[in-house]
Amino acid sequence: MDGATPWGGQPDGALLIDDGHIAWLGAAADLPAGLRVDEEIHLDGGVLLPGFVDAHTHLVYAGSRAHEFELRLQGASYETIARAGGGIRSTVAATRAADEATLLALALPRARALRAEGVTTLEIKSGYGLSEADEARCLRVARAVGAATGQTVRTTALPAHALPPEYAGRADDYVDDACRWLAGWHAQGLVDAVDAFCETIAFSPAQVERLFRAARALGLPVKLHAEQLSDSGGAALAARFQALSADHLEWLSDAGIAAMAVAGTVAVLLPGAFYFLRETRLPPVQALRAAGVPIALATDHNPGSSPTLSPLLTLNMGCTLFGLTPEEALAGMTRHGAAALGLHDRGRLAPGLRADLVHWAVDHPRELAAAFGQRPACRVWIAGQETRP
Amino acid sequence: MDGATPWGGQPDGALLIDDGHIAWLGAAADLPAGLRVDEEIHLDGGVLLPGFVDAHTHLVYAGSRAHEFELRLQGASYETIARAGGGIRSTVAATRAADEATLLALALPRARALRAEGVTTLEIKSGYGLSEADEARCLRVARAVGAATGQTVRTTALPAHALPPEYAGRADDYVDDACRWLAGWHAQGLVDAVDAFCETIAFSPAQVERLFRAARALGLPVKLHAEQLSDSGGAALAARFQALSADHLEWLSDAGIAAMAVAGTVAVLLPGAFYFLRETRLPPVQALRAAGVPIALATDHNPGSSPTLSPLLTLNMGCTLFGLTPEEALAGMTRHGAAALGLHDRGRLAPGLRADLVHWAVDHPRELAAAFGQRPACRVWIAGQETRP
Ligand SMILES: [Zn+2]
Ligand SMILES: [Zn+2]
Repeated sequence: MDGATPWGGQPDGALLIDDGHIAWLGAAADLPAGLRVDEEIHLDGGVLLPGFVDAHTHLVYAGSRAHEFELRLQGASYETIARAGGGIRSTVAATRAADEATLLALALPRARALRAEGVTTLEIKSGYGLSEADEARCLRVARAVGAATGQTVRTTALPAHALPPEYAGRADDYVDDACRWLAGWHAQGLVDAVDAFCETIAFSPAQVERLFRAARALGLPVKLHAEQLSDSGGAALAARFQALSADHLEWLSDAGIAAMAVAGTVAVLLPGAFYFLRETRLPPVQALRAAGVPIALATDHNPGSSPTLSPLLTLNMGCTLFGLTPEEALAGMTRHGAAALGLHDRGRLAPGLRADLVHWAVDHPRELAAAFGQRPACRVWIAGQETRP
Repeated sequence: MDGATPWGGQPDGALLIDDGHIAWLGAAADLPAGLRVDEEIHLDGGVLLPGFVDAHTHLVYAGSRAHEFELRLQGASYETIARAGGGIRSTVAATRAADEATLLALALPRARALRAEGVTTLEIKSGYGLSEADEARCLRVARAVGAATGQTVRTTALPAHALPPEYAGRADDYVDDACRWLAGWHAQGLVDAVDAFCETIAFSPAQVERLFRAARALGLPVKLHAEQLSDSGGAALAARFQALSADHLEWLSDAGIAAMAVAGTVAVLLPGAFYFLRETRLPPVQALRAAGVPIALATDHNPGSSPTLSPLLTLNMGCTLFGLTPEEALAGMTRHGAAALGLHDRGRLAPGLRADLVHWAVDHPRELAAAFGQRPACRVWIAGQETRP
C-alpha cells in the first residue's frame, strides 16, 4: 500500500517487529542473517496489510434511528418523522440524556466491530451533544474508547454539526459559543481536530470560517463536511485553512478540487451515506485523480445516514458505487485514511512505521474489495500486539 | 413473522421444542403448568425469529471473479475481459476442473457464513457445470453441504444458465440434451426443482418452456430467472407452469404480476445483484403488494453478480434499494422465502413447525434491516439443535 511496490505485494514475505514498530520487511529469503527473535509467527498464505484507518466516524451516541428508518419506508413524510421526534434531534436528545458510562458501553462494541474487520486507527467526532458539557462528555468517551480497545482514536470536535433546539434562530450565537467552548475542550486535551457541517441545511461558509479561525488560533487542524447535498464552496474554504480533509464531496466543483490539490487536503469519500440516502450525484473521482488529490474512504458510521460498521463493505461500495479500483479503495482505507488524520507513521508497511497489521485469509488484496457482505478471517495486531476479539 | 401477530412479537415469550419441532409458544406467564423439560435455555433480552431461508443461491462453484471486477474498474471493456477468460465462462471452466471434494471444501465455508448470519435453509442451484456429469457433481456437492452443516439444502437444477462453449450456436440441441439429463439427475435424487435463465442473452421463452415441460413430466416444480435485464414475459411463462417462484423481476410487467398472483408464484427479489450490477430499473414492489404476490428476498450468492454471503445486508438492501419495509424484508427472508422453496413447515414460529430458530441481540427485529454491514450476535438452532460456529 505504499503506492510504489506493485499491487499485490511481496510473495513469501517476512516482517520484523521491534518495540511496536516495523523494523524490517522484505522477502523471507533475504531476512538478515543471525537474527534472534523473541517470537516467530508463521502466516500460512493470505495477505498482510496495514491496519485500516477509518478517518470519519460519529461513533459516540445513544439512541436508535431504526424506527425512523421503518417509518420512512412505511411512507411517513419527513414532517411526520420530525414530529415523532426523529432525525438528528432524536440522537442529540438521547445522547444528552446518557451518562459517560452509558455512552462508553454503547460505543465500545462499535469500535470492537470495526477492529474485528481490521480497523486499528479511527477518528471519532462529537456532534450529538451540541453543548459545552455534552460535547466534552462525548470527546472524553472517544478517548476512553481508544484506551479500552487499543486502537488509536483521533478525536474531532464537531459542535457545528446541527443547531441545538435551544439556539433555534440564533445560529450565529451558537457558533460564537462553540468557538469559546473549543478553547476549553482543547485545554483539557480532548481535541485533535475541528470539523463542521457546511450545508444549506446546516452552517454557512461564513459561520464555518469563524469556527476555523478559532481552531487555527488554538493550533488545531480542521476538516469539513463539504458539498454533500449541494455546492457551498466548502472544500475551497477548507483548503484555505489547510484542512486535513474535506469529506463527502458529491457536489465538489473544479475550483474546489484545484484548491484541495494545492493545499494537500485529502478527499474523504463516504459511500455508505451515499448508499443509505439513495443519493445519485457521484463525487468527481476522475477529476480528483487527475488533480492528484489523495482519496480516502471511511465508514462515516452514524445512526442516521450511515449505520454501518464494515470497512470491507465500504471498500466494495467505494468501487461499486464510486468506481474506485480495488487498489484505490485499499489505499483509501490505509495510506490516505492516515493522511486524512494527519498521521504519517502508519497506513503503509515500511521500516519505522507502527506495526499496525492485519493478516487476511485471501489470495490477493483485491478480494477484500471485490466482494460485499463477506468477512474473510483476519488477525489484527496493534503496535505489534495481537488483539483478541 | 406469521403475518398476523403484531410486528415485534410477543414480549417475555416462551417456546417449547419437542423432537425438533415447536410444541408450544406464547407468553412465559402462560406456560402450561406441571411442565417437565430436559433443558431450559434463558435468553436474556433480544429477539427470537425463525431461521432465515435463503431461497436463491449459486453456492457451488470454483474460481474467483475478483480479478475481473478489478479489470472492469480499471476501465477494461467487456470484450477485453471476455478475451482474458472472464465472465461466467471462467466460473464454468474452474468448476468443471474442480473435483467433488474441492467443490465441497469451497462451498462449505460459504454455507457456514450464511448460517452464522441465521440461514437455516437454503437453495443451491447448479448452473456452472453445464454438462450431464458436471451439473450432477455440483448437485451432489449441494446435497453434501446440507449433510455437513445441518442446514436444509434444496437443490435446483439450472442447466439452462448459460450455453456451454461446446454447444456454441446450438442452443436448441443443448436444451434437448438438458431435458434428457434432468431425468437421470432426478433418478439419482439430486433435484428438488428446475430453474432456467430466461433472457435475450440466455435462453428464449420457447426453450425454457421445453425444459419446464420436461420438469413437470418428472413431477418437479419449476422456477425462473425472469425479467432481470428486459421483459421477456418469463414470469407469466413460469406462472403457467405453477412455478414456485420467479426471481429478479426488475422488468416485470403488469401481465406478469397478474399471472403470478393467480398461480401463487412467489416474487424473489435479489437486491444484491441489483446493487452489484449498478442497475437502475426497480422491481415493481408497489404493484406486487397490490396484487398480493408474496415477496421473498434472497442473497443470490454467486461469484459474478452477487458475491455476498450476508442475509442481513440483503435485508437492508431490500429496504434501502427496493423500498420494502423492514417487516416485509424479514418476511421475505423467512415465511416467503420458505414458500419460494415450496416449504410450509418453517419460516414462521408456530406449533408443529420446525424449530429452526435464531436469537438476535437486538431490541426489535426492525433493527436487523435498518443497519447495513453490522452483525449483531446471534445463536442459531436447526431442528432444535444449537449450531456451533
Ligand atoms: Zn459525518
Ligand atoms: Zn441466480
